[in-house]
Amino acid sequence: MGKTAQLFFTDSERDADLYYLTRFLAGDPFLYLEVDGKKTLFLSDLEVDRGRQQSAVDEVVRIHEVSEAVKKENGDALPAEPSARLALIIRHIARDRGITGFEVPSSFGVALADALRGHGLGLRWRPAPFVPERARKTPDEVEKIRGAIRHTEAAMTAAIDRIRSADIRDGMLVEGNEPLTSEMVKSTINLLLLDRNCYAYEAIVAGGEQGVDPHERGHGPLPAHTPIILDIFPRDNATRYHGDMTRTVVKGRATDEAKRMYAAVAEAKAAGEDALKAGADGHDVHEKVKKAFVDAGFETGEKNGRMVGFFHGTGHGLGLDVHEYPRVSTAHDEMQSGHVVTVEPGLYYPGIGGVRIEDDVLVTDDGCENLCTLPSFFELE
Amino acid sequence: MGKTAQLFFTDSERDADLYYLTRFLAGDPFLYLEVDGKKTLFLSDLEVDRGRQQSAVDEVVRIHEVSEAVKKENGDALPAEPSARLALIIRHIARDRGITGFEVPSSFGVALADALRGHGLGLRWRPAPFVPERARKTPDEVEKIRGAIRHTEAAMTAAIDRIRSADIRDGMLVEGNEPLTSEMVKSTINLLLLDRNCYAYEAIVAGGEQGVDPHERGHGPLPAHTPIILDIFPRDNATRYHGDMTRTVVKGRATDEAKRMYAAVAEAKAAGEDALKAGADGHDVHEKVKKAFVDAGFETGEKNGRMVGFFHGTGHGLGLDVHEYPRVSTAHDEMQSGHVVTVEPGLYYPGIGGVRIEDDVLVTDDGCENLCTLPSFFELE
Repeated sequence: MGKTAQLFFTDSERDADLYYLTRFLAGDPFLYLEVDGKKTLFLSDLEVDRGRQQSAVDEVVRIHEVSEAVKKENGDALPAEPSARLALIIRHIARDRGITGFEVPSSFGVALADALRGHGLGLRWRPAPFVPERARKTPDEVEKIRGAIRHTEAAMTAAIDRIRSADIRDGMLVEGNEPLTSEMVKSTINLLLLDRNCYAYEAIVAGGEQGVDPHERGHGPLPAHTPIILDIFPRDNATRYHGDMTRTVVKGRATDEAKRMYAAVAEAKAAGEDALKAGADGHDVHEKVKKAFVDAGFETGEKNGRMVGFFHGTGHGLGLDVHEYPRVSTAHDEMQSGHVVTVEPGLYYPGIGGVRIEDDVLVTDDGCENLCTLPSFFELE
Repeated sequence: MGKTAQLFFTDSERDADLYYLTRFLAGDPFLYLEVDGKKTLFLSDLEVDRGRQQSAVDEVVRIHEVSEAVKKENGDALPAEPSARLALIIRHIARDRGITGFEVPSSFGVALADALRGHGLGLRWRPAPFVPERARKTPDEVEKIRGAIRHTEAAMTAAIDRIRSADIRDGMLVEGNEPLTSEMVKSTINLLLLDRNCYAYEAIVAGGEQGVDPHERGHGPLPAHTPIILDIFPRDNATRYHGDMTRTVVKGRATDEAKRMYAAVAEAKAAGEDALKAGADGHDVHEKVKKAFVDAGFETGEKNGRMVGFFHGTGHGLGLDVHEYPRVSTAHDEMQSGHVVTVEPGLYYPGIGGVRIEDDVLVTDDGCENLCTLPSFFELE
């Protein structure tokens, strides 16, 4: 019986599993095989030298050599359609190495899968997470996440400082004679992150009614006396790891209702962190956060055709992707030591606003360690 | 006999075909169906309002309603594995609408494809380009590309100005007492693009021997008296369209050899532009560019184990992706009026350096129109 190989054909800028397995970063798709723990990259002539220098695999092969051999077998011609061509190359490699079947991620392209099966090769996909060990961070990875969080905190501090320094006129924030907008605060965030060699996904700076929709990125003039949600989640380009933090602030005077919401979110977050430890079920942690909101008198459900209260997950894994395995939500994902997850409860009520607080924590055998150091506060001044 | 639907399940930030078809931008995967020219989006509760406002489809359906119906059919339960769950939802939609088969792009995920076929639904993939009409730009799209090119030219001008303003010390570029590095010039480019609401993929600023490798992004101190390649290809976030331009400059005195290379590249580029018109075969255009280099006495081939001369394609389509259909290369892609393609010949010789010039042109019935306005020049000062 032949061997089974794990097979990828995608690019490692998009596919963090492939980057994790190879530590080779490329924006164009490349072929990767793992057989009995031996990792092999197949690279174009343009990439092969860089692959040998930078990757963490056992073997780097010039794919040109394989395709030349396949060409000879096929009367000096290769099919023009890329999947058909690549399938012939992979079949050649499989014969050469005694491989009779492949395991692939669920996102593996159907065209290449069909072509390989058409050649009589077995191909099975496995559900995500395809590389479950990626969720348990090594101490080195935890340090890299800490580094990304330091950049996140610097950007958050700069953004909050800008809001704090604004004046209030007619219930809106102004800088001199100009309205202070979400876009201006995001520009402060982006410039700081660029300067620190971080990739800035579009941050959320959403005030007032905009903050009631967790997907709204925020736009236009920012209001005073009402919560502004800031959610920043950059990638540190030097390491490829992410930070992800949310703070909610009010410039001016918060209403009593908003203050009660803020206190409830802070308490629910503490309840989630209390429940997080190796062996815990993410579902149970999420239930404890939900219960904290119910205990504090905040209800969740549909009201006038839209969801209000706490209607998203408690958190998610964080690392080479902003969102990765495990989830802390309705799913039964088991927490393990070395997992780094966000804890980010929130409350959203039209007419009052949205409040969310988010930190990143490391799951340990007997609890969790908060990797963030920036305090959370609500009213500015 | 039932109907066949075009089916996508991916996110439109990554998949430009899906954005083109729907004009709905989302970072999370969503379901899209097209039957007999009727376009339908299936969106989560969080996205459905935005979908109705922003998309250019005929119908937006709350996927929650479908999944609730499927749940009822399945005794109030849905499979936990995402592809299995989604396949049940799609099967329900197919029955409802008389669909018996699907056409999908070659990159469609194998797990969902297997699950749909397992339900007896037909599923065929079509080779790229899946949406060939995307290659022919409307006048509105051409204006959007012109807008992106204006940003590209502003960044190019700022970068070249910084190189021009540098001093020369011991054969290297300096600013005051600091070496001027590739990273510093890239930072000038990135700040300007950020300010103009463009997404800056990492630009190439590669001098001397680094410029001999077309994939090298460039790093460290920049040399004088030798070519520096600048290749900038931002996305205008306001429109999602791209510009893509390359200039090669020398700060100080270029060698005669480098000057001859520059003249040959400019001539080869003119030969490519002369050959480009509706009906032309991209392969023939590429051959004419290659012939111009041979006529000028510049040879291409392997030398001491690496490729030298002109060893990449002449150009590629440009639009919602930086690289899209058609290619102007060894492939037999037919040029059509409305195509926007790059023309970017280059020469690379170790010991002398790399030279590339790149503009973006609109293919017309009787030729092509250069959409770029920034002149190309070689020696600075």
